[in-house]
Amino acid sequence: MDNLYLALVHFPVVNKKNEPIGSALTTIDLHDMARASMTFGVRGFYVITPFQDQADLADQVIRHWTHGAGGRLNPSRKQALELVRVTQTFETAVEQIYAERNQPVVTIATSAKKHKNSVSTRKLKQRLGSNASHVLVFGTAWGLAQELVDNCDLQLDPITGTGDYNHLSVRSAASIYLDRLTND
Amino acid sequence: MDNLYLALVHFPVVNKKNEPIGSALTTIDLHDMARASMTFGVRGFYVITPFQDQADLADQVIRHWTHGAGGRLNPSRKQALELVRVTQTFETAVEQIYAERNQPVVTIATSAKKHKNSVSTRKLKQRLGSNASHVLVFGTAWGLAQELVDNCDLQLDPITGTGDYNHLSVRSAASIYLDRLTND
Repeated sequence: MDNLYLALVHFPVVNKKNEPIGSALTTIDLHDMARASMTFGVRGFYVITPFQDQADLADQVIRHWTHGAGGRLNPSRKQALELVRVTQTFETAVEQIYAERNQPVVTIATSAKKHKNSVSTRKLKQRLGSNASHVLVFGTAWGLAQELVDNCDLQLDPITGTGDYNHLSVRSAASIYLDRLTND
Repeated sequence: MDNLYLALVHFPVVNKKNEPIGSALTTIDLHDMARASMTFGVRGFYVITPFQDQADLADQVIRHWTHGAGGRLNPSRKQALELVRVTQTFETAVEQIYAERNQPVVTIATSAKKHKNSVSTRKLKQRLGSNASHVLVFGTAWGLAQELVDNCDLQLDPITGTGDYNHLSVRSAASIYLDRLTND
């Protein structure tokens, strides 16, 4: 999927009271989502945080695995973390994606809650056949701020299980969507 | 899926040189796999370690979220972690599963490598229609020891992506299999 990107947003997201916040980095997100990206042929994985200390932490993790001792011990982890890119804002990520392929960028919000216009993974898979770049956007904490969801070009159906429990980790959700887009 | 269980094995597994080891607990595995279990209606999630200090750590995490401050702050996490059960051996887990439903227990090994007799997730989904109990077995570290894989009743096809990279996290792999068994 040469035209598919992931974005993991740490601002603007919401806390459990649905108040706007910026969240701290969870370093395992970088590993798991990079490994899933590498598995399913994602072109680049953007980690978005406006906080300099969190961006520094992300850079430190990436450097350890791409240029430090980590990568020598575990070359497959090196390959995965080479996909990670850190930006301050979602807009900057979209600009970089545009610049990389010189194609329009379709932004796709994910959420654990159903959006009135949301589309199925199958529908999205068909759209990935076009030449446009696509970026699948994930929120940390209790999810993306509603404004960001609404501003995306598409909203993806939430992942449903056997009941109404909808508290998958962002790591699980990203993995499931990528598998569906590849294998469903 | 009232007849489906997960097991996460910390012994016997292998390191990257394919030598038999016992691995340390990764607490985020408990969270992510419990949340996925809760989402997809898994009946119980076994964490298997012969090491007392690791079992104590697992119990501490579970207690914090089921009876401590964690569960009061985050009731949905409480619900998920209530599914977790800690045993010293895989055999004990299978005995408990047998005792719980008084039905034969079908053990299903997962691996990132193709097993000569492995079955597809779709095939397994059909088998789940029977009344037998089924336990999907995951390895930590570099995967389940070959002997345990071979001793299981079934071996599941590995998850493949767009290339030959096969280094998903166990958290991602479990989530993907459960989604396929539910939604595919």
